[in-house]
Amino acid sequence: MGRPARIVGLLTDFGPGSEHVGAMHAVLEARCPGVTRVDLAHDIPPGQVRWAAVQLARLAPLLPRAVHLAVVDPGVGTDQRRPLAVGLTCGGALVGPDNGLLGLAAARMGARWAVAIDPPRGAGHVSATFHGRDLFAPAAAHLAAGGDPAGLGPEVSVDGIRSPSMPAPAIGDGQLIAEVLGADRFGNVALIAGAADLASAGLEPGDAVTVDIEGTCREALVTRAFADAAQGTLIVHLDSHGHVALAVTDGDAEARLGAGPGRACRITRRRLTPASCGG
Amino acid sequence: MGRPARIVGLLTDFGPGSEHVGAMHAVLEARCPGVTRVDLAHDIPPGQVRWAAVQLARLAPLLPRAVHLAVVDPGVGTDQRRPLAVGLTCGGALVGPDNGLLGLAAARMGARWAVAIDPPRGAGHVSATFHGRDLFAPAAAHLAAGGDPAGLGPEVSVDGIRSPSMPAPAIGDGQLIAEVLGADRFGNVALIAGAADLASAGLEPGDAVTVDIEGTCREALVTRAFADAAQGTLIVHLDSHGHVALAVTDGDAEARLGAGPGRACRITRRRLTPASCGG
Amino acid sequence: MGRPARIVGLLTDFGPGSEHVGAMHAVLEARCPGVTRVDLAHDIPPGQVRWAAVQLARLAPLLPRAVHLAVVDPGVGTDQRRPLAVGLTCGGALVGPDNGLLGLAAARMGARWAVAIDPPRGAGHVSATFHGRDLFAPAAAHLAAGGDPAGLGPEVSVDGIRSPSMPAPAIGDGQLIAEVLGADRFGNVALIAGAADLASAGLEPGDAVTVDIEGTCREALVTRAFADAAQGTLIVHLDSHGHVALAVTDGDAEARLGAGPGRACRITRRRLTPASCGG
Repeated sequence: MGRPARIVGLLTDFGPGSEHVGAMHAVLEARCPGVTRVDLAHDIPPGQVRWAAVQLARLAPLLPRAVHLAVVDPGVGTDQRRPLAVGLTCGGALVGPDNGLLGLAAARMGARWAVAIDPPRGAGHVSATFHGRDLFAPAAAHLAAGGDPAGLGPEVSVDGIRSPSMPAPAIGDGQLIAEVLGADRFGNVALIAGAADLASAGLEPGDAVTVDIEGTCREALVTRAFADAAQGTLIVHLDSHGHVALAVTDGDAEARLGAGPGRACRITRRRLTPASCGG
Repeated sequence: MGRPARIVGLLTDFGPGSEHVGAMHAVLEARCPGVTRVDLAHDIPPGQVRWAAVQLARLAPLLPRAVHLAVVDPGVGTDQRRPLAVGLTCGGALVGPDNGLLGLAAARMGARWAVAIDPPRGAGHVSATFHGRDLFAPAAAHLAAGGDPAGLGPEVSVDGIRSPSMPAPAIGDGQLIAEVLGADRFGNVALIAGAADLASAGLEPGDAVTVDIEGTCREALVTRAFADAAQGTLIVHLDSHGHVALAVTDGDAEARLGAGPGRACRITRRRLTPASCGG
Repeated sequence: MGRPARIVGLLTDFGPGSEHVGAMHAVLEARCPGVTRVDLAHDIPPGQVRWAAVQLARLAPLLPRAVHLAVVDPGVGTDQRRPLAVGLTCGGALVGPDNGLLGLAAARMGARWAVAIDPPRGAGHVSATFHGRDLFAPAAAHLAAGGDPAGLGPEVSVDGIRSPSMPAPAIGDGQLIAEVLGADRFGNVALIAGAADLASAGLEPGDAVTVDIEGTCREALVTRAFADAAQGTLIVHLDSHGHVALAVTDGDAEARLGAGPGRACRITRRRLTPASCGG
């Protein structure tokens, strides 16, 4: 790691203000006194590894030399995933389960090395261990304090780091079909599609479209900014991360559309007929 | 700014533990390493600028020399409001959109200067910019590090800082009509009225009253403390900020009354007739 | 206190990201500049003193030399409880209301001294005081800065520190009846029972059981880890704190069972009859 980072970013699905997040903070401070702790996100919906991986890949580069401790781990207590620490080209590191969570950030920032973290000494059977507190936080504290990665466990290949499935959108003339990635607190829904996909589909600001999510169909408008549509209008736009996204000005697009993660969303340019959604 | 504050308070409606809050923390730490970050509030209901302005005016004076970064910004991506930094007489500063959010704190603490923050260089069209991360957090980091306000943008008049509308209550003999300001997690509802208003209306601890919020009418008791009423009783009291407030001992007054922000609340001294709410 | 701890852990039921938590953080930083603040938990359901006491007793030992500031205080504004500071054998301290909240942590970590905190000078009548901000946070800052406990108020006996009621489970052959302690964000429900109780009841991994909570009866499986049961299965296991706990793999046991705190939960080994819950 060279000079110790002494900064740890935390990203979990434990819930803001939960004792699980608190325990990890306490372990970090106890094992690396004075460490700078930065909460990146804790409101990831439980078990949504892919959505968490996307957020980690956005947030970790803001602190490229920090150790980022990420725990979204529906497979905890199984042998389905390895606990992993990944060294990044810019000096930082990622620590968390190898279930896809670390893959996007590792790819974006460049992985130099990886180690499979050994279970904590003296740990009992797996269900009696809270990995965030007992395994991952101590490993992150070790790295943040400038500890040798080799002290965590055996080196493994950086080529084996798992990434979540990110299916490419299906694109036609005036049509884009993409999976729902996730939604934020305001109900803004991000799709697995970007500016180039929208352009390939020939959709552009000003277009009237229909948005169809597994049976729920709504009329919408492709816009540049929220303000370009009347209050309550469903809009399709590029969000601040470059995702094609659904939003309602002063409203909640996720609730209106039932747009849960993984659902297919079809955006189609509207013909000027009276019943676009029904037809 | 004189000596750098190196303390930044954060207040947003982004939601506790959200990636949006995390991104602002990361930018602050990246641009002003070692800065002390204090989360003031992030659970403001989305877009409630007035309620946020009230909370900022309460919290900012607790750290008078800090830079307070506040983002509740339903008009983001429009030209409806300026991004602003305001210097305070005691050495601290406020940074956020000039949509009313900063006005109450600026008035309470005294504004010495104001600058309209220039958009970040290289930013694309507005909807592709997350202003909290790309505009406001960098500006706050700049000030916290002791940077010159003039480096943020052109000076503007402190007289133009916007404040939210705070309509005065209507007061009669034994009656107070005031707007709902907002509610906390416990469902305690604050009104836009204070001790003097309650006194002017001739209402005092021990009085039996009715509380009428747009059709929902309930019997209540004016009290000093929660403990002065039986469990489940609706009470009218002065909260710890001096607002006339509605509460239910071990219950949720907001839910019971449907007391959303902006609604009119009428508190009337009860005559000793059987059907106060119906009559 | 010897050398100042300069670390303060915070645990409340004020809600993550609430202004009440923010105010306490601001007061700590203002009164003890540079203090390390660690959020232990803020999502305790309102007024659940016992569940908070259990979490405090788990979390405080992770930072044994810190001052732990805990506020879950349904009796605020009454004379029903004393504000207390408790010195611990390892050098740390607890600060909060003496309503049971501090008792389990004090017992686990060892109490050396206790003082009843005097009300802040100049405070008005009780309902006009937010004790977390005006009483408890200043007391914690005083201790974290190395201040003399005697400066807070008169010494009281450590024997009088209150603990919450923790009723022992009722154990029979193949049966365990225990009270629900609380649930986490994932809906995992902890009972007031541990490994020894499960063993005394003769229940062990692999056993088919029924779980009966005040009328709601479900079939379940005693397991070691989540992964030992099919998705959607209700399981009985030992959680990472050693509590007998109910969980649903990829689901929410609290919602499925209506398992609110304080309810009685009966776990019974199942006979191989078709209708265990109905019989």
